[in-house]
Amino acid sequence: MEWIKKMLDGDKRACAKLITAAENNPEEAEKIIREIHTHTGNAHVIGITGPPGAGKSTLTDKVVKHLVDEGKRVGIIAVDPTSPYSGGSILGDRIRMQDLALNPNVFIRSMGTRGYLGGLSKYTKNALKILDAAGYDYIIIETVGVGQSEVDIVKIADTILMVMVPGLGDDIQSIKAGIMEIGDIFVINKSDLFGADRTATEVNMMLDLTMNMERRPPVVKVVASKNEGIENLIQEIKSHIEYLKESGELDKRRKNNMKLEVVELIETELRKIVISHTDKENKLDSRVMEILNKEKNIYEVRDEFLKSIKN
Amino acid sequence: MEWIKKMLDGDKRACAKLITAAENNPEEAEKIIREIHTHTGNAHVIGITGPPGAGKSTLTDKVVKHLVDEGKRVGIIAVDPTSPYSGGSILGDRIRMQDLALNPNVFIRSMGTRGYLGGLSKYTKNALKILDAAGYDYIIIETVGVGQSEVDIVKIADTILMVMVPGLGDDIQSIKAGIMEIGDIFVINKSDLFGADRTATEVNMMLDLTMNMERRPPVVKVVASKNEGIENLIQEIKSHIEYLKESGELDKRRKNNMKLEVVELIETELRKIVISHTDKENKLDSRVMEILNKEKNIYEVRDEFLKSIKN
Repeated sequence: MEWIKKMLDGDKRACAKLITAAENNPEEAEKIIREIHTHTGNAHVIGITGPPGAGKSTLTDKVVKHLVDEGKRVGIIAVDPTSPYSGGSILGDRIRMQDLALNPNVFIRSMGTRGYLGGLSKYTKNALKILDAAGYDYIIIETVGVGQSEVDIVKIADTILMVMVPGLGDDIQSIKAGIMEIGDIFVINKSDLFGADRTATEVNMMLDLTMNMERRPPVVKVVASKNEGIENLIQEIKSHIEYLKESGELDKRRKNNMKLEVVELIETELRKIVISHTDKENKLDSRVMEILNKEKNIYEVRDEFLKSIKN
Repeated sequence: MEWIKKMLDGDKRACAKLITAAENNPEEAEKIIREIHTHTGNAHVIGITGPPGAGKSTLTDKVVKHLVDEGKRVGIIAVDPTSPYSGGSILGDRIRMQDLALNPNVFIRSMGTRGYLGGLSKYTKNALKILDAAGYDYIIIETVGVGQSEVDIVKIADTILMVMVPGLGDDIQSIKAGIMEIGDIFVINKSDLFGADRTATEVNMMLDLTMNMERRPPVVKVVASKNEGIENLIQEIKSHIEYLKESGELDKRRKNNMKLEVVELIETELRKIVISHTDKENKLDSRVMEILNKEKNIYEVRDEFLKSIKN
């Protein structure tokens, strides 16, 4: 495809085109991913998550600017579960990061969850692969860490930043253990506010209480709006990357993620087979009537379908 | 099985035993459901849902007492997503409805969601079928209507009561359309509180705005704690049952629910096949390494697995 060639040459518009094509059509997505496969696996993926109001967008801006100043190319996928926009232009290009979006070394894509019911992570993964193939050094996935699906998305990342703010108080306690456990670096943003030290202490205590950690995540205080602490944060990100590579953890994570992806793809195909079998000649309708009329039980009907699928 | 015979004779202990057996072991569940199948389909299932603090438990108590006074047998499945208890004794028997639990015509089961990750509705459906076969005239499923999974559970019901309280104000507006749409009867509990009329008016307005309703759900004001309005509510439940039967809606709902259940069962079996195929001789591990080493792309690997599954 011509667009793929352009994208591999670093054309931002081609990138956007391909991401949209992959979103709109699963077959197109498959074609694209098949073709770009050998170009993937080079970008380092940073997930940024945390409660609404934690200042994740501002933090993302500052981190990206810092990386760009180092001469890196950065792709951003902003997942906003409350946004009705998808397809990426409005939120990404207008409201936030207006100057960044104009930078030739930065690519921004917003994804609203509306219209992606239950399947956003698939689209995020495809967009990630396209940006990876396009040669972005870092790809940042920013999500609001509220639901399980946002947590799932952020789990694709190599390095996960968990952003918190002073004054959450009880909320920190109520953050589910599962969410605490996925953080590789804890960032206390707005740390010029009253209570920042207490929040940092609380997070540190929670981390100390968590057993079975191979690596104790650092807690970093920043004031993103004033660009304070960002350099330190970047250092922590880099030492996490070092750790991931040296410990073999990077390979392990990517292998695990790939396993899940393969199983998901197989299940998607099998689901299609189930649907085509049960829809055929209203088979499901007539079988269900047999269950309701007590001629057959539900497991007998299931077994009949399974038999016909295997033939 | 001896327990099934006892359960069919109305033995409460046998009921509890079978529900626990079905929870603990999917094969046991299949065996039980296969055997009791012809005895199911007779109970009328009432779902009671609404936000925390709406007084659903008290309302359930009063509704159950009323039905028992009419000479009916009533089963209750209380789904509490925040409760660590499952297996049904503690919440159900001790804290709530102590006198009801002793009534020979009432069966109470509590299910906490911990330990059921993502699959509570399966267990609820099995418990429902066992109670149905045991001859309970009404089965009440009480859930806290917060997450999608609780909504899914309550959708199993024939008649769904949506419980609200005065003073929710903005919250009512924010109740998702999808949740409003599943209510068959809207109950304003604690309607002796200030603002009850306004809440009723708001709910009525929302219902009037909802298009494409074959039947306009009634809005019923009650004060469950004082037993006020319960008789009226029971009347509304009964006229809904009448409506369901006469309009053919009952058959339609049960048919749709059964379809979903069959498809879910088929998918569960196929998932087992995927797992057994991919786990065999660490096949998934070696294939994933081929992807990460860029020898194959993910779709090639998927297709290989699909081929081996079909053979």
